[in-house]
Amino acid sequence: MRKKDLLTLLEYSPEELRGILNLAAKHKKERGTVEKKTLAGKTGVLIFQKPSLRTRVSFETAIHELGGHVIYLPDESVGMDTRESVEDIARNLERIVHLVVARTYAHGTVTRLAGACGIPVINALTDWCHPCQALAFGLTMLEARPGKRLNAVFVGDGNNVCNSIMALCAKLGYSFTAACPKGYEPDASLTEKCKKICEETGGETNVTNDLHAAVEQADVIYTDVWASMGQEAEAEKRRAAFRGYQVDEALIARAPKDVLVSHCLPAKRGEEITGGVLDSANSVAYEEAENRLHVQKAVITYLFGG
Amino acid sequence: MRKKDLLTLLEYSPEELRGILNLAAKHKKERGTVEKKTLAGKTGVLIFQKPSLRTRVSFETAIHELGGHVIYLPDESVGMDTRESVEDIARNLERIVHLVVARTYAHGTVTRLAGACGIPVINALTDWCHPCQALAFGLTMLEARPGKRLNAVFVGDGNNVCNSIMALCAKLGYSFTAACPKGYEPDASLTEKCKKICEETGGETNVTNDLHAAVEQADVIYTDVWASMGQEAEAEKRRAAFRGYQVDEALIARAPKDVLVSHCLPAKRGEEITGGVLDSANSVAYEEAENRLHVQKAVITYLFGG
Amino acid sequence: MRKKDLLTLLEYSPEELRGILNLAAKHKKERGTVEKKTLAGKTGVLIFQKPSLRTRVSFETAIHELGGHVIYLPDESVGMDTRESVEDIARNLERIVHLVVARTYAHGTVTRLAGACGIPVINALTDWCHPCQALAFGLTMLEARPGKRLNAVFVGDGNNVCNSIMALCAKLGYSFTAACPKGYEPDASLTEKCKKICEETGGETNVTNDLHAAVEQADVIYTDVWASMGQEAEAEKRRAAFRGYQVDEALIARAPKDVLVSHCLPAKRGEEITGGVLDSANSVAYEEAENRLHVQKAVITYLFGG
Repeated sequence: MRKKDLLTLLEYSPEELRGILNLAAKHKKERGTVEKKTLAGKTGVLIFQKPSLRTRVSFETAIHELGGHVIYLPDESVGMDTRESVEDIARNLERIVHLVVARTYAHGTVTRLAGACGIPVINALTDWCHPCQALAFGLTMLEARPGKRLNAVFVGDGNNVCNSIMALCAKLGYSFTAACPKGYEPDASLTEKCKKICEETGGETNVTNDLHAAVEQADVIYTDVWASMGQEAEAEKRRAAFRGYQVDEALIARAPKDVLVSHCLPAKRGEEITGGVLDSANSVAYEEAENRLHVQKAVITYLFGG
Repeated sequence: MRKKDLLTLLEYSPEELRGILNLAAKHKKERGTVEKKTLAGKTGVLIFQKPSLRTRVSFETAIHELGGHVIYLPDESVGMDTRESVEDIARNLERIVHLVVARTYAHGTVTRLAGACGIPVINALTDWCHPCQALAFGLTMLEARPGKRLNAVFVGDGNNVCNSIMALCAKLGYSFTAACPKGYEPDASLTEKCKKICEETGGETNVTNDLHAAVEQADVIYTDVWASMGQEAEAEKRRAAFRGYQVDEALIARAPKDVLVSHCLPAKRGEEITGGVLDSANSVAYEEAENRLHVQKAVITYLFGG
Repeated sequence: MRKKDLLTLLEYSPEELRGILNLAAKHKKERGTVEKKTLAGKTGVLIFQKPSLRTRVSFETAIHELGGHVIYLPDESVGMDTRESVEDIARNLERIVHLVVARTYAHGTVTRLAGACGIPVINALTDWCHPCQALAFGLTMLEARPGKRLNAVFVGDGNNVCNSIMALCAKLGYSFTAACPKGYEPDASLTEKCKKICEETGGETNVTNDLHAAVEQADVIYTDVWASMGQEAEAEKRRAAFRGYQVDEALIARAPKDVLVSHCLPAKRGEEITGGVLDSANSVAYEEAENRLHVQKAVITYLFGG
């Protein structure tokens, strides 16, 4: 049997994704009790090109709680494509460990890693997508609005997180709208793909520059920082482009009263979101952060055939 | 029930501190055998703003041996108050892990961490105090001089280590004297607090510039480096100020023959202490280093209700 | 009983080395099944002055799979001989942990560490030798050419890896030839020692500048990078010196058809070895990389009396 990876959500069917989310809910319920030790005796490495709090802590804890060992390898000490090619690294790792979790700048790096080794590779964030964050969002929605065909609005930068949430919504038959300034829309070819997926799932994929109209019927508003790690140089330009796209009290007032708000964190309070909104009763951002743990356990369990 | 932290020794009663030291002695005796796995299935993170050998190795080993998993997070990869506020970090961590051990520059940082999360936080050194080192000193004294009302003399810089040893001695009813050059006395308001505590415990808290008189009746002489991490810039000035405060063979000769000597390590041999004294039969510094392991297990066991 | 270390292969008898290789084969066969948990409840620290992929991942996994815990300590956070002397570090570590694995620049550093502490120390690469790599080579040869008195040829830089493979061959009674450019021969005094050892084991130790003659009867050709970590400055000069010493298809054509090829990795493809040769059916380099795991488990088991 060919090993499985989680590189993007696109390779997963709606049934598989629903199965993973249900499995995640089960892990959440069984945490610390009867959870299956899928990784007993196994070792997972985390290769990270970017530092991280949530991603690292949630993956290390997930692997630990599934019975496995973790080796954290910041890329400074690995040197992907500088000290050794990504492919050679993969061919070494597959000999010794059982799982690779990779956080890379270029999406192609994680694809190459996965292609060159016979053990599961999980994408823990690339410049193109962030499937585990989208799954955490999916679990949070299942919990907060069970059974609902959601209307999700992503506000701000059509970045990697936006791409994955758009893909998840398409797969789950949700309505999704990216409300972004001109020039900052999500990946156009992915948007087309998601529209195609929606034809089968009953979902909707929209991209708009009209923020106010977008949030009027929103069940959930999602946002993310305006400048990701590595984009600090253009922070000033971005701040100008995103003026008016802050998720603040005024924007929330235009949405339904019980609108949910989320964010992949860390947040720049006062920039893409106000501290008031992030800390309000509408916010599920910290719940979603916790759900990273549970969905990642589910992904691992799934990849290892559980 | 409100969670407990170990931020300073001041919040702990003499009974609690004696209980922790007794528990530490038990852990030491039972190491590797019947020790209770208080942290089974649990994960502790170490957030360190300063590098460390003893603190890191003793805490990681303590958590491991209590059955838990460890994630070591140097602050470079967390970015407290730069990448994300201390409070937001705390609110994420409490969702995923079970224990935070923090080594921070500012004492306020560890207090804020503890205040913002619902899981136990242990102070593993701040600019203001070092409670685990003081507990290790306490265990070492219980072992070397059981049942004795000690006369402890801290020589040199009235720093964070000095503060905590002063507090421990006050709580345990010991006599404590800080023999420091002018301008390098321990924290004045803490000194007052310790004197107040001594009224109840029968201890004594003294601060003096007369080193020779201080050591004459000492049961134990403690010292620490003259310039801590981060104070390298003023090392020259400090070296001048501390001239005459070296714990050397001449000073030991003024003390009782069986005087104990300790140091929180790492030592600058030939500066605040001579290699000869540190390696002499009087020295319990390496025993105390080991005791870090045992007292930290006891603290964890206590915080988790054991 | 005095504790044992693995600092170089010279302190080990041929019988001991064969025992370790056989134990390694057993670990390989029993991986993930009935393997003995020699390190249950124990902690090993890895102190590394150089970054590493294979060495780190294989040691951490070895320790995990033997039931132990790992603390990875890059020297930046330990400061050997800057923050604290190697001896003082050793005297602290022996109090808290059970095993030290050290990767140091100077061979003397690992010797001093071992001399100053009462727990086993394993050399995970120094400027002078790399015994674990040589053991992995030994296991690979036992598997690929069981029972054979090998003719091994090391091509290129007579470095630390070359030294250890030369020593292993001498101990096992193999014929060994270092084919190196003038000025890059293996350590002369070690070469003499190996010749002496060969008098008892029936092996042969040769050093030559005639590469073509050397490979004609080779069972295995081994090479390594021309400039190791830390020698980048002289990379240009070295590249000139090693011209003609590339392990390429033309060189392989001069050797027996079934010649094995190995490399300690990472390789600079197109420099000391061509990608074609490294990826060819003759290559056992990735098998040998995996064997690091198994031989290191065997060494640990041996040092702990298993």
